[in-house]
Amino acid sequence: MRWQRRHVLSTEDWSREEIELVLEQATAMLEVLARPIRRTPALRGRTVVLFFAEASTRTRMSFELAAKSLSADTSIITASGSSVEKGETLYDTVRTLQALGAEIIVMRHAASGAPYFVAERVSASVINAGDGWHAHPTQGLLDALTLRGALGDLAGKRVAIVGDILHSRVARSDIHTLVPLGARIALAGPPTLIPSAWREGSAPDGVTYERDVERALDGADAVIALRLQKERQEAGLLASLREYRTAWGITEERAARLRPGVPVLHPGPMNEGIEIDAAVAHGPRSLVERQVTNGVAVRMALLYLLATAGAGAAERLDELAPAAPPTEVPA
Amino acid sequence: MRWQRRHVLSTEDWSREEIELVLEQATAMLEVLARPIRRTPALRGRTVVLFFAEASTRTRMSFELAAKSLSADTSIITASGSSVEKGETLYDTVRTLQALGAEIIVMRHAASGAPYFVAERVSASVINAGDGWHAHPTQGLLDALTLRGALGDLAGKRVAIVGDILHSRVARSDIHTLVPLGARIALAGPPTLIPSAWREGSAPDGVTYERDVERALDGADAVIALRLQKERQEAGLLASLREYRTAWGITEERAARLRPGVPVLHPGPMNEGIEIDAAVAHGPRSLVERQVTNGVAVRMALLYLLATAGAGAAERLDELAPAAPPTEVPA
Amino acid sequence: MRWQRRHVLSTEDWSREEIELVLEQATAMLEVLARPIRRTPALRGRTVVLFFAEASTRTRMSFELAAKSLSADTSIITASGSSVEKGETLYDTVRTLQALGAEIIVMRHAASGAPYFVAERVSASVINAGDGWHAHPTQGLLDALTLRGALGDLAGKRVAIVGDILHSRVARSDIHTLVPLGARIALAGPPTLIPSAWREGSAPDGVTYERDVERALDGADAVIALRLQKERQEAGLLASLREYRTAWGITEERAARLRPGVPVLHPGPMNEGIEIDAAVAHGPRSLVERQVTNGVAVRMALLYLLATAGAGAAERLDELAPAAPPTEVPA
Repeated sequence: MRWQRRHVLSTEDWSREEIELVLEQATAMLEVLARPIRRTPALRGRTVVLFFAEASTRTRMSFELAAKSLSADTSIITASGSSVEKGETLYDTVRTLQALGAEIIVMRHAASGAPYFVAERVSASVINAGDGWHAHPTQGLLDALTLRGALGDLAGKRVAIVGDILHSRVARSDIHTLVPLGARIALAGPPTLIPSAWREGSAPDGVTYERDVERALDGADAVIALRLQKERQEAGLLASLREYRTAWGITEERAARLRPGVPVLHPGPMNEGIEIDAAVAHGPRSLVERQVTNGVAVRMALLYLLATAGAGAAERLDELAPAAPPTEVPA
Repeated sequence: MRWQRRHVLSTEDWSREEIELVLEQATAMLEVLARPIRRTPALRGRTVVLFFAEASTRTRMSFELAAKSLSADTSIITASGSSVEKGETLYDTVRTLQALGAEIIVMRHAASGAPYFVAERVSASVINAGDGWHAHPTQGLLDALTLRGALGDLAGKRVAIVGDILHSRVARSDIHTLVPLGARIALAGPPTLIPSAWREGSAPDGVTYERDVERALDGADAVIALRLQKERQEAGLLASLREYRTAWGITEERAARLRPGVPVLHPGPMNEGIEIDAAVAHGPRSLVERQVTNGVAVRMALLYLLATAGAGAAERLDELAPAAPPTEVPA
Repeated sequence: MRWQRRHVLSTEDWSREEIELVLEQATAMLEVLARPIRRTPALRGRTVVLFFAEASTRTRMSFELAAKSLSADTSIITASGSSVEKGETLYDTVRTLQALGAEIIVMRHAASGAPYFVAERVSASVINAGDGWHAHPTQGLLDALTLRGALGDLAGKRVAIVGDILHSRVARSDIHTLVPLGARIALAGPPTLIPSAWREGSAPDGVTYERDVERALDGADAVIALRLQKERQEAGLLASLREYRTAWGITEERAARLRPGVPVLHPGPMNEGIEIDAAVAHGPRSLVERQVTNGVAVRMALLYLLATAGAGAAERLDELAPAAPPTEVPA
């Protein structure tokens, strides 16, 4: 199939084929990243603007290095010190980014839906790098790439997602990406942090809610621990961080009871000793660093597909020419 | 003519020929920006430092993307977190930037005149990206480029500039750039926000002060609305933002009374609903986004002229070679 | 000799030969920086991450421009707005940087020893860009390069270092770099700001403590004035800044009594009128700007040696091919 989309806002309405196409392209990008010179000229002279209205380090750097590996020019805009602070509307900000030459706007925003608002109003491509509680599609795709690397075909595989589901754009995007690939999702977390409809039997297709973490982990082929925002405790949604760990943490003891080879993922940054023990985060089951590396490849794939939409994926693979060896003189 | 200047501090003392030369060069840069690969190797291996001691997003990004389109290396220094905060003098900061390799220092500073102080003390070229109330020459040049694109020759054309003239480096630089090109400027704004001498009949050559906005707009060939700093109200210079809009705003009603085709400009970021209505800002008369795009081209032109001073403009145009196509391997 | 190290954490345990190798490589880099196109493709497609958990402008820009002159890709992470603020451990942050593709992590941190902790736990190379009071090895190397440029062979040369020795990673790294090259160091500064063991006769080999600045300057072949952190006064370690200048400042009068040609250095940013007079800082003895330029060359040398470790230095010099001239089309 050919890539048809102009934006990446959520994988909620994506077909399995679209997801597969991105994963295939990301796999090609992993090969680029394994070269001595991690760079291809594919997007030379193209401009990618990273608009992070909400703080982020790893996602911003991941997109930045992905864009640079494709030889694109990048410019970063954060909320602080920007015209956003001077009262400019979001609409005007993004129209300005486009008029400055941005062909792709990577955008993180605290407001759910903000990237949709933007995408309808610009001719540039928009990639949602996380919008409020809503979606974080590149996280879903990188988790899918990571799980496929570990488990192969995800059909029938059981993936436990544990933690604060209610406020988690990661959980939503994991569901929207893994279920079309055939995975079944078992959710677990404090009842105050689960959407009430899901708790009461109306979870999405392919998703079940388990009352305790042991039932979710039982028979799991993979486990995703979610970051606990410590603000949840202040908001009265949690008794204490210590109790959270006891009830829902992916502790060393719980990890030891998983079947051999069952991997553990976490979107980062981790609160070690709360939602995940350090021994698990850095133990043999951990795929946390693989997720980070795969994230660069997935973002390269999406930047590339958006920038070259119209040509078929197969032909495009030929374009990933290696950069010239560094000791030669470009002439 | 040949470009002779080492710095761009203000267009106040520029000849018409110098302004024309930059506009001609900027027009060539617009062609570079229209290429599939928006990049020319003209400034490869040259270093442009963006020193923004006062916050800015759009101007910083515009210079940054201009420099990158010319393949220059860039580094950004802002006041916060910098040695400026550690008590270093401005002189030492810029001498350091030069010793680090900066060939061109793009500088925004809250103090009027700061770029002049710097320019006298470094061998690097200095571009003023806005100094206090004094000057913002690249804004004047991009407004000139935009108006010429819309109106052709500016000789005898009437340009209304409406708003807080007193504190506006944009108004000053527009006057200093548009008048040499033959335009006549009609100013309007609250009497508290107009230099008193200008109000009392001693406006610069080519400039008239009109007591109300309707008289300024009457017969205008173009309108420039200025950003209203909301601090002006706190300082007692304004009754209320609502009254400001009523008296001086470029409202939908006022815009409707302009002759067909008369364009409206704004330097951004806009306070929509105060100095300009959203319907005007995004309506058919608006050239706001064209200004942003032209700003990149004007800054490319200036960076290029400063970096290659000595060669004539005509020869230099040949140097704007396209970058290699992205699918080929540089060898 | 061949470069063998994977990290640059301190020069404390370096041999004279290693220091010489870096200085020789840096001298080659100065030639690159003197070219019309200050860029070599040596590190194209390699990723250098600048992790500045403590604020810095000049050191960050120096490393950034060094990396860009070698054509490396860079990404900057500062403590504010980063996952460091979100409670992530230092270990997780640097593992993430490595998983993102960082081959070299340049790191400034307020905690002495932090880069050692990191270096033991990553496969990437780590360069210490200043850790607490402990070490700032690239400053020691750039000071050595600067002093050798001014004085030739440092064997038997007397270098006075004046100021707050106790809290100075610069003083420590200067000692650890200059003494192996044969220099003798004379320290002077307020007794409250000298390590007590050093004051009492147990200074390191090659280092003497002088009770007053005049004795330190007497017979000096070069003088290094250290930055005075103004917080020291608040902490009660200093009477007043005025008294500090009188007792320990490199004033115009003191500089006039130095032998002709004796140079004065300062790591910057300077508090002019406190530890150094403006007339000295910008007078004929000053090598302050030379230090800045040499800093870029030293950092290029280290980035290059770390990135290409395994090949001999002599062969590597051939790799510093000039970039293509800017007017030609890479094809």
